[in-house]
Order: sequence, then C-alpha cells, then structure tokens
Amino acid sequence: MPPSTPVPASLMERKRRLVQQRIIKAADELFAAEGFDSVSVSDIAARADVGRTTFFRYFGDKAEVVFAKEQEMLDAIAAFAAQASVGIAQTASEAVEQLRPIVLLLCAQATADLQAYAHHCQLLEQHLELRARDALKMQQIADKLSEVLIGRGTDETTAVFAAQIALACYQTAKRRANTAGALTDKTRAAFEQALALGHRMTSTRESTE
Amino acid sequence: MPPSTPVPASLMERKRRLVQQRIIKAADELFAAEGFDSVSVSDIAARADVGRTTFFRYFGDKAEVVFAKEQEMLDAIAAFAAQASVGIAQTASEAVEQLRPIVLLLCAQATADLQAYAHHCQLLEQHLELRARDALKMQQIADKLSEVLIGRGTDETTAVFAAQIALACYQTAKRRANTAGALTDKTRAAFEQALALGHRMTSTRESTE
Repeated sequence: MPPSTPVPASLMERKRRLVQQRIIKAADELFAAEGFDSVSVSDIAARADVGRTTFFRYFGDKAEVVFAKEQEMLDAIAAFAAQASVGIAQTASEAVEQLRPIVLLLCAQATADLQAYAHHCQLLEQHLELRARDALKMQQIADKLSEVLIGRGTDETTAVFAAQIALACYQTAKRRANTAGALTDKTRAAFEQALALGHRMTSTRESTE
Repeated sequence: MPPSTPVPASLMERKRRLVQQRIIKAADELFAAEGFDSVSVSDIAARADVGRTTFFRYFGDKAEVVFAKEQEMLDAIAAFAAQASVGIAQTASEAVEQLRPIVLLLCAQATADLQAYAHHCQLLEQHLELRARDALKMQQIADKLSEVLIGRGTDETTAVFAAQIALACYQTAKRRANTAGALTDKTRAAFEQALALGHRMTSTRESTE
C-alpha cells in the first residue's frame, strides 16, 4: 500500500490511543499527587481535558485506568496466539507448554518499563480494591488463555486446566521475584516445575523406596 | 473438665458468632430484596440491630459480609493443618499432595449448603466488585496454604508454588463443575491431573517419538 493512501481506521485508532494515553497520564499524576481514593473520575476527565462520557467510553471505572496495561495484554493474547501456527494440544502438558510462550511474553510486556511496573505494584499494595481487581484481571487472562487453546481445537476440560496452571506459574513467579526484572525468569522456572510435577514425585519415591 | 465449670471465653465467642450471624442474615435479606448496590452498611447495621461501629468490628466493608464463609475457611485452614501430623514435603509434588485434603475439605465446606452456595455464586455473577473480591480471597487462601507448608518446614519456594497449583485445581473445578455438588469431585480430579502433568508429557512423547 503506498504511503499516500489514507487509512481512516488506523488514524482513528491512533487518535483513540492518544486520548486513552492522555487519560492514563492524567490519572497517574492525580493518583500520585492526591492518592487513589481522593481522586474522582470527574477529576481525571478534567485533567485529561475530556468529558466524563468520553472517560467511560475508554474505561469501565476509576480502577480500570490502573489496569490499562493488563487490558492491553488481554487484547494482545488473541493476536499473539493467532500468529503461532500450533496444532491441537493432545495432553494437559502440551496445553501448558503451548501457553508458556504467551505467558512469558505477557511477563516481558508487564515489566518492560520497570519503573512503571514498580509504581503499579506499589499502588496495588496500598489499596485492597486494586488488589482485588488485579486478582480478577489475572482470572480474566486465564480465561482468555483457555479460549486460545479451545480455538486451536483443544477440549475445554484440558484448556481450562492448562490455563489455570499457567496462571499459577505466573502468580508463583510474582511472589518469588525479588525484583521486577526477575519476573520472566521466575515464571519460566515455575513452568518447568509444573511440567515436572509427576516426575519429581516418581523420582523421589524411586530413590527412597 | 466438669460441665458445670464456666467457660467465659467460649461464651464470648458464642455471643460473637451470634452477632456475626445476625449481621450476615440482615445483609443477605437486604441484598436479596434491594440489590447489593442499593444497600449501605448503615442499612445492614440497622436491620441487624447493631451500630455501625459493631458492624466494622466484624467486617472490613460491605463486600466482606458476602465472603464471611471464605473468611471462616481462611481461619479454619491453620486449625485443620495443625491437626494433621505431616512431615516436611520434600518435593513440589509432595507439597501439592499435602494441600489436597485441605482444599477438598474447603470445597466440601463451601458447598455444604447447596442453596446458599448457589445464591453466593449468583450474587458474584451480578457484581464485578464481588467477583474481584472473590478472586482476591482465593489468593489469600493460597497464601494461607503456603504458610501451612512453610510451618511444616517446607521451603518457601516450593510452598508458594504448591499453593498456587492447589488454587489452580480449585479454580479449574469451579469452571468445570456444572453443579455445586460436583465441586469437590472435580477438584479431586484436577489434583490428579496436576500430579500427573510430567507423566503425561513423557508417555505421549514416548509413544509418538
């Protein structure tokens, strides 16, 4: 396509992203200055120079602004999965293995800006409501991961299980990682451990019995 | 101890439970009649014939009343774990196996009153805030499960991983169970599947390569 051809959809999308970024920036600044609880949706909208209606076109509520990145990740999962030409996972282990590269990519994305990630974690630590929303977002990511597997032809029973195991690996890593930079490596290690669960049991028993 | 001996602590505990039950009952009735969003803490306190201060002595906020049972489960985990005389889990698989009976007991407790469980699920389905709180409660239960393992001498790395796998089994079961009554059996099946993850992978590879 020659560069002179107008691409209205893409232009609209770019404009949409700019407005979204402006709302996120306004919210970040207000949360940092006044605290999450003291800031209203109206405050954010005013600072971002948009109306409340526009705000709610982009975000369901105030907490959702904090999880804009997670929402992007949710949207990215399907796109990423579509790129990979992978067949049906025949076993639960294969299904978990299929999810591994997607989850590792999500980790890398989440921690790409270490300062922003640290700031996000700090905000969550201070607010029960945001920790709850985070836990829910992670479950939504797991549900999206199971949809990827189902889309590839894996049966729902296996897909749901594999997605929850994949989430368990991520949650384990989040608790094990001392620094944001360690998240991806720790997640990789947790996947290794999950895929060896039965083995370790056997090897221990074999050596002790 | 002879039955005539007064037991002040237990009496206080019994009184505490009665007040708590009265608040839960009042909240349940109000939520059912007017919807979760329309009911305030003051409404619940008034119907339960207690002050707001008393309410907050029992529950952190309105949503917590909906998770009174989950909170009880959290408290019960340590007590249940203390009863079992189990040694240190040497491997991740052993750690997951140690958590299995505890999680199965929690499932049985959660679904002991099928009607109440169904009502609880319905309320969650209708409210994003409650689904978020539920996801967080489950993470808190996982953290408590890892504490049980650590208390038995298991290293933290293994304990955190095993607790997240145990939670994954429960979350899988919740999605697989068509009826509340099936939750415990589906959880048991998910544990079996988790503990065979490595095995399955090997057997598939051995037969295909």
